[in-house]
Amino acid sequence: MSDSDGRRGATRRGFIKGALAAGAGAASAGAAGAEAGDPAITELQPWMRAFGPGVDASPYGLPSEHESHVRRRYVEWLRPDTISAVNFTPIHQLDGIITPNGLCFERHHSGVALIDPGRHRLMINGLVDTPLVFTMEDLKRFPRENRIYFLECAANSGMEWRGPQLNGCQFTHGMIHNLMYTGIPLRHVLDEAGLKPGAKWLLAESADAAAMTRSIPLEKALDDCLLAFAMNGEALRPEQGYPLRLVVPGWEGNMWIKWLRRIEVGDRPWHQREETSKYTDLLGDGRTRRFTFEMDAKSVITSPSPQAPITHGPGPTIITGIAWSGRGTIARVDVTLDGGVNWHTARLSGPSFDKSLHRFYFEFDWDGRPMLLQSRAIDSTGYVQPTKDALRAVRGVSSGYHNNGIQTWAIDSEGRAENVEIS
Amino acid sequence: MSDSDGRRGATRRGFIKGALAAGAGAASAGAAGAEAGDPAITELQPWMRAFGPGVDASPYGLPSEHESHVRRRYVEWLRPDTISAVNFTPIHQLDGIITPNGLCFERHHSGVALIDPGRHRLMINGLVDTPLVFTMEDLKRFPRENRIYFLECAANSGMEWRGPQLNGCQFTHGMIHNLMYTGIPLRHVLDEAGLKPGAKWLLAESADAAAMTRSIPLEKALDDCLLAFAMNGEALRPEQGYPLRLVVPGWEGNMWIKWLRRIEVGDRPWHQREETSKYTDLLGDGRTRRFTFEMDAKSVITSPSPQAPITHGPGPTIITGIAWSGRGTIARVDVTLDGGVNWHTARLSGPSFDKSLHRFYFEFDWDGRPMLLQSRAIDSTGYVQPTKDALRAVRGVSSGYHNNGIQTWAIDSEGRAENVEIS
Repeated sequence: MSDSDGRRGATRRGFIKGALAAGAGAASAGAAGAEAGDPAITELQPWMRAFGPGVDASPYGLPSEHESHVRRRYVEWLRPDTISAVNFTPIHQLDGIITPNGLCFERHHSGVALIDPGRHRLMINGLVDTPLVFTMEDLKRFPRENRIYFLECAANSGMEWRGPQLNGCQFTHGMIHNLMYTGIPLRHVLDEAGLKPGAKWLLAESADAAAMTRSIPLEKALDDCLLAFAMNGEALRPEQGYPLRLVVPGWEGNMWIKWLRRIEVGDRPWHQREETSKYTDLLGDGRTRRFTFEMDAKSVITSPSPQAPITHGPGPTIITGIAWSGRGTIARVDVTLDGGVNWHTARLSGPSFDKSLHRFYFEFDWDGRPMLLQSRAIDSTGYVQPTKDALRAVRGVSSGYHNNGIQTWAIDSEGRAENVEIS
Repeated sequence: MSDSDGRRGATRRGFIKGALAAGAGAASAGAAGAEAGDPAITELQPWMRAFGPGVDASPYGLPSEHESHVRRRYVEWLRPDTISAVNFTPIHQLDGIITPNGLCFERHHSGVALIDPGRHRLMINGLVDTPLVFTMEDLKRFPRENRIYFLECAANSGMEWRGPQLNGCQFTHGMIHNLMYTGIPLRHVLDEAGLKPGAKWLLAESADAAAMTRSIPLEKALDDCLLAFAMNGEALRPEQGYPLRLVVPGWEGNMWIKWLRRIEVGDRPWHQREETSKYTDLLGDGRTRRFTFEMDAKSVITSPSPQAPITHGPGPTIITGIAWSGRGTIARVDVTLDGGVNWHTARLSGPSFDKSLHRFYFEFDWDGRPMLLQSRAIDSTGYVQPTKDALRAVRGVSSGYHNNGIQTWAIDSEGRAENVEIS
């Protein structure tokens, strides 16, 4: 390895040279940096000296042991008990737009229903010509579609209505995931049962011990809802509704009934518990919004962020994050380094799908001074992600749902990040 | 559940009615079917009676225990020893176009290198102005891109040159996966080092005990190659090259060097072991093709197939499969039920990306008679997937690589499938 010994400081040019010029100390002093005499270069590493595990070692593969810190996490004070709780996607450690199946956040009302698919049934009843019961095998005889959608819990960022509460985007924005679903358009199954005159709403019911139910307008059901049985190519995971989940694109996650066992067709909404006492927006004047189905356009910088500080010092730095809208695609994301004085257009990278996560990047030379980072999403309808104060002016601070306000991270001169608000 | 009791045979209409009319016995007699008095309907299931596991049960989630048959598999007679071997993606059990990370096939030459990313380095040397060594943190300061690509081993279907050998598409076509990669365009890093006049080829080297190497034309490297660190949003899996893999879109998988530790720039190919004695196409006349980089357009029906027979009897039946091309997108897939007498255009569903898997479906009413199923891919260059005989006429039967011939499954009247060839 002599061709690199002793040359590092002198040889880096362009992109990396900028880094060293601006902050050579911070960039080259880190334990992770490649240095002359670095044993990672001069010594033969263990994995080069001996054979590794063979192909029969793991018929279903898992991440490296060096990635064991990348995991779903819960917040102790959000856990009323062991079975009704929430954990969060580690969005600060992910990239691209696909969420890996093992890291999708969970929100259950009676824990995970562990279902034998051979004994699972879907019933269609109510205002239909013919009530029907389907096995999973029956359902898989209908034409399938493959589409990528985000799912965001209505309560994502909900703790932040009254000000910064949770120090990390995993906790403030991690009730979201983005998956490729394989499923049957719901309209095929409703056509099979035959809708009676007056049919206007559906009630979707879960097979868990909570028997979770939500009312869904028929128009949405016939438009783009799916009966999904696969996520990212394989069967749904138990915590995501195995063997069958209702996909309600762009709408709040609570409506995406997991472990789907029954769809009743009716002429009006049912006003069940999870759409009255919960999952309604309490306004400042004490009234509530009856339904708030769509998830408005939103974005967040995932790195740097409180759980993902800048560790390399000044110089070339990458800001990255995610943006999404329940009403279409993301047209643009703006990023500010100074709390909104100057805005820069971020670079979107990766496919742009309707009602799907979008990934943005903003590359710049950090001068090492403190920053106030924000991102702002603009969706394909022209809607601009609002400030938290703009939201509060309309809706007060009593809601626990639908907070899509602009998030601010304060970065200090050491690269550490904190959840703050500015006005 | 009385609204469905006793009505099944009478109530199914349209799509499902067709099934019952054509083969009521087979469709309704199956153990999986929903029947009057079915205890799955009339009895409260265990998962509705008790709380399930909470959110702290699995910080990194896994599939249902009912999916334990969905796994990578190896073939005993393809295993020369425990560390140099191959296993296969269970493509007959997957849907959509994304391969879940735990099920991507493996092919190692010295087992899986288990690398500490903090001690991993990438060196750039040879015909460059400045040899460079990068830590993983250094690399992550370059601009990233997100793209979805298939990776197919050159030897996929290679055992089939002399005729049907393996009874299942997992084994005949399962050395393929399709992932969203996050990575740094290789050109950024080469620009940083500065290419000297005469630079025309790269040698990419692995950090495993085999120190796997392949020669890659500079033109390809500057075009679309990536230094990938993430797959489907999370860090690469160890068996897929953690922490760094070279992505060489559309080209044979052996060139996608895993555990990438070094890139040497030179003026000609190196002719290393894995591009001379292996991974070259031996022709019928004893000569070999020097390099065969691109993977030609190919497709396979994944269900029904020998490992995924038709179990529901006659009636509405779905044929599904995957198609791909190393030269672009898939423009069309044709399906035949009668060994090529009549061809039907299949339905493509899901996003169409350059050098990515495409998913196709063909829905039809099966009359219960034996079939000879084939699929035929046409890519965006107009290339048509050839028959195996057409390939053999040009290339003989001595190659173990680049067999993209049309696959035939014979389906018997019970729905069982077998790997056959017809001429």
